[in-house]
This record gives sequence, C-alpha cells and structure tokens, in this order.
Amino acid sequence: MDAISVIRTKRDRGELGDEQIDWVIDAYTRGEVADEQMSALAMAILLNGMNRREIARWTAAMIASGERMDFSSLSRPTADKHSTGGVGDKITLPLAPLVAACGAAVPQLSGRGLGHTGGTLDKLESIPGWRALLSNEEMLHVLDTTGAVICAAGDGLAPADKKLYALRDVTGTVEAIPLIASSIMSKKIAEGTGSLVLDVKVGTGAFMKTIEDARELASTMVGLGTDHGVKTVALLTDMSTPLGLTAGNALEVRESVEVLAGGGPADVVELTIALAREMLDAAGVDADPAKALADGSAMDVWRRMIAAQGGDPDAELPVAREQHVIKAPASGVLTRLDAYGIGVAAWRLGAGRARKEDPVQAGAGVELHAKPGDQVTEGQPLMTLHTDTPERFEYALQSMEGSYDIAAPGTPFTASPVVLERIA
Amino acid sequence: MDAISVIRTKRDRGELGDEQIDWVIDAYTRGEVADEQMSALAMAILLNGMNRREIARWTAAMIASGERMDFSSLSRPTADKHSTGGVGDKITLPLAPLVAACGAAVPQLSGRGLGHTGGTLDKLESIPGWRALLSNEEMLHVLDTTGAVICAAGDGLAPADKKLYALRDVTGTVEAIPLIASSIMSKKIAEGTGSLVLDVKVGTGAFMKTIEDARELASTMVGLGTDHGVKTVALLTDMSTPLGLTAGNALEVRESVEVLAGGGPADVVELTIALAREMLDAAGVDADPAKALADGSAMDVWRRMIAAQGGDPDAELPVAREQHVIKAPASGVLTRLDAYGIGVAAWRLGAGRARKEDPVQAGAGVELHAKPGDQVTEGQPLMTLHTDTPERFEYALQSMEGSYDIAAPGTPFTASPVVLERIA
Repeated sequence: MDAISVIRTKRDRGELGDEQIDWVIDAYTRGEVADEQMSALAMAILLNGMNRREIARWTAAMIASGERMDFSSLSRPTADKHSTGGVGDKITLPLAPLVAACGAAVPQLSGRGLGHTGGTLDKLESIPGWRALLSNEEMLHVLDTTGAVICAAGDGLAPADKKLYALRDVTGTVEAIPLIASSIMSKKIAEGTGSLVLDVKVGTGAFMKTIEDARELASTMVGLGTDHGVKTVALLTDMSTPLGLTAGNALEVRESVEVLAGGGPADVVELTIALAREMLDAAGVDADPAKALADGSAMDVWRRMIAAQGGDPDAELPVAREQHVIKAPASGVLTRLDAYGIGVAAWRLGAGRARKEDPVQAGAGVELHAKPGDQVTEGQPLMTLHTDTPERFEYALQSMEGSYDIAAPGTPFTASPVVLERIA
Repeated sequence: MDAISVIRTKRDRGELGDEQIDWVIDAYTRGEVADEQMSALAMAILLNGMNRREIARWTAAMIASGERMDFSSLSRPTADKHSTGGVGDKITLPLAPLVAACGAAVPQLSGRGLGHTGGTLDKLESIPGWRALLSNEEMLHVLDTTGAVICAAGDGLAPADKKLYALRDVTGTVEAIPLIASSIMSKKIAEGTGSLVLDVKVGTGAFMKTIEDARELASTMVGLGTDHGVKTVALLTDMSTPLGLTAGNALEVRESVEVLAGGGPADVVELTIALAREMLDAAGVDADPAKALADGSAMDVWRRMIAAQGGDPDAELPVAREQHVIKAPASGVLTRLDAYGIGVAAWRLGAGRARKEDPVQAGAGVELHAKPGDQVTEGQPLMTLHTDTPERFEYALQSMEGSYDIAAPGTPFTASPVVLERIA
C-alpha cells in the first residue's frame, strides 16, 4: 500500500477500497503519508467525490485514529447539537441549558470561529473567568452536576480529523461535502453522544449556498450517524440573514441571556425551541422546552453551567470602546439584510480571526436595529458597529456595501421561514 | 495574492490570470507557498486542465525562476533533442555525436531514470571514468571542442521546475499534460538551444498511452517552443515494443556503439537518422547523417566526447554477474513483445531505481534475441536477463507474464512504423 496508488485511484475516478482508506488515514495520522500527498488526495476527493460506502469508511477510520468517550455512566440520555456555522448563530448558548433543564444531558464540544462565522467558545470566553479547556474528568463532572457542558474538544478525539481539517483550511479543500460530513461526524461519534441534531445552514452566510448542497450534506451526515448507532436528525435552516440582532462575542452572550430570561428576538427563540424539541425527541425525553424557558429553569442551568467552568454569570460583559452608527438612507421596508456582509463586517471589526493564532475582541461586532420586513425611517439607526480599534470601521463598512435593500414604503414582504426542511 | 485564492480559481474551473501564475511560481520557489498548497493546485490542474495561454505563462514563470544559458558564443547553430522516455531508448547516445559530426552543436542536458524508463546519464555512467556533472564552463568547453555534450542539468536552470517535478513525483500528479509540457519546455528554453526536436513516445512503454494524448502533448510543446523563439518540431514514435535489442545501462551503451560503427538494430538506426535529419533541418545545417554514420565521423565525435568527460571509450563495459535465458515456449511468429513488461523487468533486475537515491547496476537489464515479426523455434533463446543479484530473477520474470505472444508459423505480421507522425 502506498500513498501514490491511493491518490491515483481517486484521481482516475475510481472507488477507494476499505484497505486503502484505513491505511491512508492511519498513515497520515502517523506522519507516514505527507501533507502534500494528503492535500492532493483531498483535492481529488473534492473534484471527483466519494460514494456513501467510501464516506462511511473514511469516517470510521478517522474515529479509529483516536479515543472514544463514553457517557454511559450518566443517569440521563445524551443529546448533542451541531451547527454548520452561520452569522449570529448563538443558539448553542441558550439551547444546551434549555435541553438540560428538560432532562437530557448535553455534552457540547464546540469550536472557535474562523472566517466570517463566529465560534461558540469565543463567545463564552467573553464571560469573565469562563474556561473552555476542561480535562475529560472535569467535562464529565460539569455534565453530571449541571446537565450541560460547553467546552473545547480534547486532542484525543479523532486526531486524523484535526490534522486533516488544518490542512484543508490552507489548501482550498474545505468545500467538499464528503470531507465536511466525515469531519463533523467523526468528532460527534467519537464524542459518544446517544443522539444528535444537526443544524445545517443554507444561504449567503453559510458554507452551503444552495438547498440542494445542504440537503446532500444533511442526508450524508444523518446516514453516517444512523450507521454508527447515533440517533441523528437534521434541520435545514435559513442563513440568508443573521440570526437575531447581534453578531459578535459579548453581544451574542447578552442576547442569549435575554432568550433564557424569556425574551430575545423571535427567530432565535423559534430556532432554539425547534432544535430543543428535536434533541429531546431524539433522546426519548418527553418535556416542553417552551415551559422551561418561561419558568426560569433553563436560566438556572445556564448559571450553574457557567459557574462550574469558572465564569461569573452576574459579571458585566465587555463593551467595545468605540461605536459607529449606520443610519437608514431612506424610509421604507427593509427587504434584505445579507448574512455574509454582516458576518464579514463583524469579523473585520475584531469579533473573528484571520488566522488560528489571532486573538478576538470580546466587545466587537454588529448590532442590528432592524430586520428584514421591518419599516424603517430615513435617518434612524439601522445598525451599530462595535470595536476597540476604530481604524477598522472603514474596512468593515466596505463589506456592508450592497448588503441591504430598502424598498418603497408599503412594499409587500414575505419572511423566509427559519426552519426550511427536516431530514431524518 | 494568496495561495488559497489561486487554488480555488483552478479548483472551480476558472482560468488562472498572469499575475496569479507569476506569483504562485515565484512564491513556491521561495518557499512562501507550501508543498501541500502546490500539490493541491497540481491536482486541480491535472483534473481541470489549463488553456494554451495559462500553459505559456506557467512555462515562462518557471524559466524566470532561474538562470538562462547562452550558446551565442559558439560558432555553430545549436540543436537539442528531448525524448519523453521509453524502454530501450538509447537514441541520445548515437544521435548527439552524429548531429555534431554533421556540423551542429548539441548541448544535451539529460536526466536519470525513474520507474521503468531508463535514464541517459545512468547509461553513460557505465563507461569507466565518465562524469555526468559538469560546471557551466566545462559544459561549454566540451561542446565547443567536440561539438556535443551530454551532461546533467545544473541547479540554476528552472529551479521552480526542479522543485515541482519532485513534488509531482510523490503526489500522483505526474500525468498532467500542461505540467509535463511546461516542465520539459521550461528546461529546454532556459538551456538556450536554438532548435529542438521532441521525440514523443506513444504506447504501453510510454507515459502517453494513446496517439491522441501524445498529439496533444506534442502540439502543446511545439507551441511553447515556437512562442519562445526556439525552432521546435515533434515526432510521435512507437513505444509499444522496446527500441533495439537491449534495455539496461551498459547493454545499451554497447548497442549504441554498434550503431556508431555502422551496424546495430534497424529500428535504432532508423530513428537515430530520422531525428538527426530533423535536428539538422531545424538548425539550418545541410548534411547527410547516414553518410556521417557510414564514414566513421560520428564515432570520432563519440570517442572525443566521452574522453572529454573523463570516460575511456576503449574500456571494457561492465557485464552482470548472472544470466538467465528465457526460451521460446513454441515455434511460430513473435507477434508482440510489450515494452512496459520488458521495461519493468529491466528495472527490477537492477537497471533502474525505485527511489531517487538508489544506485543502479551497470550490467543489469534485458537482452532480446527476437523482435516482433521474427520467426522463433521452440526452445531457442528469446531473451537473456542480466543481473548482479540473481534473487531478482523471479521478481523480474513476474513482470514478463503475458508480455509476449507467439502465433502459429506463417501468421502474417505487419510491423508498426517507427515514426508515426510529425508535428511542427
């Protein structure tokens, strides 16, 4: 078995055999297959595809490259959620404590933001004292005592994926459905959750720009989860406009706390409850998440969970040093507010990072004062940009050009539904 | 400009711009673009292609990565030949002194064998004392005093190609016509020859298995040479069966000396003269190569050229320690003798190398006692295998399975012509 013959098979539109896949993933993890060989193979996979059998084996080989966690010692069924990433997507923050308040255990291994989509850990780190990095024992302890934990994935889970993901990021091979699906699912299956709900974003602010691509990714992942004994469901949800009214780290924590307090923007509440229902259903727990939001029990879990990881749930959240208000240039109906433009602006203001090693600004981001469908009046604040480094305003404003439309007053507007499809 | 945007352009079937090509070749040479990024780009080029403009710019950028040689101080016009590589292809050995004897200067920068095709330098190194490595000054001196020089290309010529070639070799991206064409032509143009004849091999023993692929490669290279002011012609020649009666280093030198002495196998003589006519014509020299073979003047240049690089033209050539004779299993007409099978056998016997750093055996190889079209009698020697390491016989014999056919006596046989097409 050698790397070149594996690369040639896929290059020439052949099907990779089980032994080829097992060997190449293991040899890459050990460093025997070089980065330049794996990147050529990744490009061949991106351009020539993999069938279901190949994707399943590829995923299994990545799981086998590391340890598997085990939650069977917990008294509750486990349910996890994964989002493919969007702008203003803070849903994990209210969702994990909400589902825990309803009786499931939520082990939420999360990532950091790269590019225009934010990262859950970056958001939570704006809470003074909160720690993302837990040992496996600490993680189990927080999960067992509070019902939910949101933390960084340990190095031991699917190390092949960790290495391959970093390689794809610098070689233009991120956008391959077989590689995206196997990357997500290898981590989730190795993590050991009993059920999983996938939030597959569709639209300008998402990786998947079309419903067809999102459907293919979702059904590939549902198939992989099911084959590995994880009850898996996917919702395709809209990401043509930002979720809620904020994109940025502390800004989104604040909005999440509003949701947990029974308020918050309608779309964030709707999606949080829809995903909670799916998670509880998949875990076999009969409970009403709307009630747990209303009666404060989700907020109680949030406060315990934040405190268990060193955070102070009552601390003041950081505020950016400088603000810039964008005013409505005309009166009328806001008919479009583009997720990608807002995401890039938030990123450029300091909420995201260009390179893995860059720091993020806790207070930076974009605050929206209107959403598609709202009436606006000329001169009213449309959004507020926040940053500690005001020299970034101009660069952020560039990304906003052509990102919103205001139509004549009275123009009819039909809102896109939050949940587009369900795949199980 | 960044590597990922260049990779994405080609990945998404776009056309690379001049600035993108110039930047990526220069940045790769300087180490700013990493090997794993270049290999992903090479795979995208292999699968999505490049158009004529892109190939021309890619070639120009590789030439610009290093020095250019200048033969304008020579009193004679220069003519060079390049073969895409085949089994038993020793043509450079008699050809270079023959063309020099006719009045052109032949600067022949050659390579070593990798895989089943032999390398000109490996063959000449079987002559005791002969040195492949010359400084630019030594090279010019040998060329000026003897009319021909065969030596290794210096490190200064097209370093981008040197780096990219080594990368393609380990990443399954060798077989891309745009990359093969630009690799060959960047070295030949940087070398500074005034005219160039390309011997593009077609058949089982060649890189190009079909006449269509060979035509595309040949016309791409002719276009590149012409655009850079090098008079360039290509012959497509048959490589379905080995050239001549030997494949191996010292074995092929011996056969080449026979040709220079006025003898040798008919196909080797025919191709040598055909290529010599093209080279002389391209260089604008009016002379008859058949005469220079017959009157011994080509042999005189050979002896001076070998001696000028430290070799003893009268020395005994190495002979392998062990021989194994394959006998004809039946009487009849030898209708097929597969170049690839014989090439792999010679390689396995020790004539070639598996890795760049491996040594080769001077005496190893395959000697043929019959060629397609010949009558054979059951039990007569069909070929002799030569090696210093007899444990390799069995491994070499495996590659010969199914490599030849003997048909019933009297079966009509039509020989394939040596030269199939001419592209100018």
